[in-house]
Amino acid sequence: MGFVTSNISISLDGFVAGPNQSLEDPIGQGGMRLHQWAFATERWQAEHGTAGGERNADSDVLEAVVTDVGAYVMGRNMFGPGRGQWDLDWSGWWGEDPPYHVPVFVLTHHPREPIVMQGGTTFAFVTDGIERALELAEGAANGKSVEIPGGAETIRQYLRAGLLDQLWLHIVPIVLGAGERLLENVGDPVLQPTEVVASPAVTHIKYRIVR
Amino acid sequence: MGFVTSNISISLDGFVAGPNQSLEDPIGQGGMRLHQWAFATERWQAEHGTAGGERNADSDVLEAVVTDVGAYVMGRNMFGPGRGQWDLDWSGWWGEDPPYHVPVFVLTHHPREPIVMQGGTTFAFVTDGIERALELAEGAANGKSVEIPGGAETIRQYLRAGLLDQLWLHIVPIVLGAGERLLENVGDPVLQPTEVVASPAVTHIKYRIVR
Repeated sequence: MGFVTSNISISLDGFVAGPNQSLEDPIGQGGMRLHQWAFATERWQAEHGTAGGERNADSDVLEAVVTDVGAYVMGRNMFGPGRGQWDLDWSGWWGEDPPYHVPVFVLTHHPREPIVMQGGTTFAFVTDGIERALELAEGAANGKSVEIPGGAETIRQYLRAGLLDQLWLHIVPIVLGAGERLLENVGDPVLQPTEVVASPAVTHIKYRIVR
Repeated sequence: MGFVTSNISISLDGFVAGPNQSLEDPIGQGGMRLHQWAFATERWQAEHGTAGGERNADSDVLEAVVTDVGAYVMGRNMFGPGRGQWDLDWSGWWGEDPPYHVPVFVLTHHPREPIVMQGGTTFAFVTDGIERALELAEGAANGKSVEIPGGAETIRQYLRAGLLDQLWLHIVPIVLGAGERLLENVGDPVLQPTEVVASPAVTHIKYRIVR
């Protein structure tokens, strides 16, 4: 079995998205504040085709997050705003060359043919549930780890099912006050902090989950 | 003005006490799990008259927490389980020599004469609200800092009122699932992480609050 990991930015009061998520506010009101630390890095700017940004501890963490990832499993709501039957013109938020560069398995109830993007990213659509998606991802990952990038409900599903080996939290020093909580209805997992990286903007804590 | 600080253990899902607080479970069901890291230290054992315990990063943090504290302000519910008129036989949970060793101001709606304990601890009772209690504590602190040890509602009151300079969170890698949240209804404070200490048991993050 491969190593299954997830990483996500979380407010000090436990929210991974602000309230009232919508097409205009896909991470909810105030939710973008969770990601300012990432936007400020050179790593993120380069990945999104722009110049500038900082090289610092946060940049190193962003780089480490994708190192050794061989495949992704994401929820449909992270792939796009659509629900129900597919709009076949939609191929994700990320343009022609998405920042994944490996196979991505998208959880959905609606079958769809795979999409091959530029830069090594492929999107395959899995209608047989989270365990089957993970099995496919592990097969495609070539011995590397499988990352569950989100959304929150997808991470919770894998955590609840006892299928996650690692949760890497980027604890952002803001209080959102409302929104979507990550660690709600996930049972009582046994977590061990294994690595902590501190920056002025955020505290990155890597937790090993004891299966 | 002196420096006003607070420190508290918090679960990964944001709780500082478990659900169903009672006389038998003063920190709620499962709430003692938040403090195992402290109980395990030599510092805590020595303070409570027992031998043993570890000397480690957590022990150092426990020691740092009380260094330079010149006075405390605590809520009545932290001082004891009683409500309403005072039971004058009650002088706190901590026996004859409480672990404070400086003046402690207890917020209450019911006047009571001060109590002088052994080891330098005095308990004075303040009925004029949190600002007056802080004023008295700052006067008694002799230029040292004032610590707000709790309970959670007392910390929230000072945070909401913009009177807290520092919040030191001990982030315990457990998911309590229910209980009392610390960072609820506290507005949108501006927090800056200034120091992070990691141990296998807990991650200590010190936040400066920008007034």
